[in-house]
Amino acid sequence: MPIDLPGILGPLAFSPETAKPLLALAHQLLFLETKSLSRAERELIASYVSYLNGCVYCFEAHGAAADVHQQMPGWARSVWKDTTFKSLNRKMQGLLIIAGKVQGAPREVSAYDISHARSGGATERDIHDAVLIASAFCMYNRYVDGLAVTHPPQGDAFYAQRAVAQASKGYLGRLNE
Amino acid sequence: MPIDLPGILGPLAFSPETAKPLLALAHQLLFLETKSLSRAERELIASYVSYLNGCVYCFEAHGAAADVHQQMPGWARSVWKDTTFKSLNRKMQGLLIIAGKVQGAPREVSAYDISHARSGGATERDIHDAVLIASAFCMYNRYVDGLAVTHPPQGDAFYAQRAVAQASKGYLGRLNE
Repeated sequence: MPIDLPGILGPLAFSPETAKPLLALAHQLLFLETKSLSRAERELIASYVSYLNGCVYCFEAHGAAADVHQQMPGWARSVWKDTTFKSLNRKMQGLLIIAGKVQGAPREVSAYDISHARSGGATERDIHDAVLIASAFCMYNRYVDGLAVTHPPQGDAFYAQRAVAQASKGYLGRLNE
Repeated sequence: MPIDLPGILGPLAFSPETAKPLLALAHQLLFLETKSLSRAERELIASYVSYLNGCVYCFEAHGAAADVHQQMPGWARSVWKDTTFKSLNRKMQGLLIIAGKVQGAPREVSAYDISHARSGGATERDIHDAVLIASAFCMYNRYVDGLAVTHPPQGDAFYAQRAVAQASKGYLGRLNE
């Protein structure tokens, strides 16, 4: 990448014409109010899939965002590390199981997985959104890692600072930073 | 999916607010004129990654689109089946090797892969676009397969008919079909 910025920021700056729909999608999926999942829940799914993909910049950034929305430092990381998801409600347990399959073996999402999430309270909309967030982060993660961009910043301060700013203004602002 | 349409059309109809950026991204990546790859080359990358992901609807649809732009029936399929890519020029050989790694192991795209593509004539822009098309189809494929949508239509006629229509109008039109 000719533009030396951390994580996805380099490719987004290099290609503003593709940055526009990429950021509009993130803003819709993670920030705008919906009748579906909370911002904390949506950022948790994004960070979990990024963690499974091993994309450091993305899991740090979206883990920090999940923590800010949940008002609980270290929350996202504690979820990724416990694959039983026992600290979460049954709806989120079911959705994270689906998100994990979407990341690794999307054709193995089963009718059982769907009905399991539904029995925990997930609506059709929740399931759709969880699948699309998981799918979208399989794109964002590859966009970052496939272009072998600058090594991600170390330490929590960089991510926490951005997460606090984005918690109030969302993702479109990056275009104008 | 509550809406019974083939492939990605069901989820797009179910969720118009996410369909908008998803289709805007496809239109930019595959249809709008750029100083980078031809439409045939871009559809070939999209179809190849979909083939590697085993997403039948997507590889049939974008393979048909590549064939239409190349004006050569069966072209895309013949490329997927020969992993040496020997029928292609060195630029496209290098880009398809990168696209294949983005699909399966994005952190393994190496400096050698990049310089190999460059030595075949690929620009920074070509490499960026190939990586983003490959990444985006890892999303679209998962969105289709993760929601276990309707079985894809059988036979070439369905895809060929859509491909001819889209070759002239691109992807935004789907919103209004």
